[in-house]
Amino acid sequence: MTVKQPARRSERSKQAILAAAAELLAEVGFPKLTIEAIAARAGVGKQTIYRWWPSKGAVVFDALLSRMGEDGDLTLPDTGDLAADLRLLLRGTVAEMGDPGFQAPGRAMTTEIQTDPALAREYRERLLGPNLEAMKTRLRSAREAGQVAADVDLDVAVEVIFGPVYYRWLLRLGPLDDAYADAVAGMALSALR
Amino acid sequence: MTVKQPARRSERSKQAILAAAAELLAEVGFPKLTIEAIAARAGVGKQTIYRWWPSKGAVVFDALLSRMGEDGDLTLPDTGDLAADLRLLLRGTVAEMGDPGFQAPGRAMTTEIQTDPALAREYRERLLGPNLEAMKTRLRSAREAGQVAADVDLDVAVEVIFGPVYYRWLLRLGPLDDAYADAVAGMALSALR
Repeated sequence: MTVKQPARRSERSKQAILAAAAELLAEVGFPKLTIEAIAARAGVGKQTIYRWWPSKGAVVFDALLSRMGEDGDLTLPDTGDLAADLRLLLRGTVAEMGDPGFQAPGRAMTTEIQTDPALAREYRERLLGPNLEAMKTRLRSAREAGQVAADVDLDVAVEVIFGPVYYRWLLRLGPLDDAYADAVAGMALSALR
Repeated sequence: MTVKQPARRSERSKQAILAAAAELLAEVGFPKLTIEAIAARAGVGKQTIYRWWPSKGAVVFDALLSRMGEDGDLTLPDTGDLAADLRLLLRGTVAEMGDPGFQAPGRAMTTEIQTDPALAREYRERLLGPNLEAMKTRLRSAREAGQVAADVDLDVAVEVIFGPVYYRWLLRLGPLDDAYADAVAGMALSALR
């Protein structure tokens, strides 16, 4: 048991750092967030943070992923009915993006990946890429079932599904509710047939 | 003639400031851009800049608008053929967003409006809102011509048209070329029928 103690302590520190980062981000916003403040709130030294993360953007990204339940199974529901699955998926996406707890880290990430190439690569590899791939896998299965036209470019298709939601969220164009999710799902479905 | 001199000098200073802001933005990026550097490059005092703009975000926004030819007529082409008009519009949008000169100010704006409510209001009133309204006007005419289904929500429709392009641009998901514009136009058209 004793051999495992340091690993457990490490894990506790990591969780405290991620929780502190998420709290402070919501309180002061990304531009004013500092590694010093995260360290103080988490009760660790700055060096402890820098041992695991290269930048405050990287800490915030991990805080975001831990909120979203990373390492969860990304396979999308496949009931055989694309219309129903798309509605369910978009209702979930919209609820997640509209969640107050997602606002600060989600917007900070979108901002940071514009100027931090290393973070942009991580974002793409660990979050964006796997999500788009899961959607494409579901659409391939729908294509085999004859619910998606054979000539539809799946790279464009996933953007037609997620792009409108992302656009509305980022530019705060309107409510993110079930009615909106259903409207996008309905239009996307027509677009793919 | 002499009475007009100060106004002409003002206009020259303004243009020099906007050009300096655009150049420096491309050279150093928004986070490292300073009002001091813009003033030095434009050959004016800092106070001259602060007399006209409240923040560096506001200067950058005007630099972006002057690149885009603000005050141009925003009415979209209406040949009576929505498919053709949508392809033309999206080819133009995609070319503009893919233009290297648009990258720095476009991304800086997207970032800044996340944390600067005054700038976000200006962005919405002077750029985003008028563009979305122009699109809705075109779609209303298409609806009267029977090319858009009566029950389509036009607020969602404009997001289905512009959202995918914005998403691909901001997250650098793929090329912004004519083939892409045509693919989005084709899917959007199916979505609206």
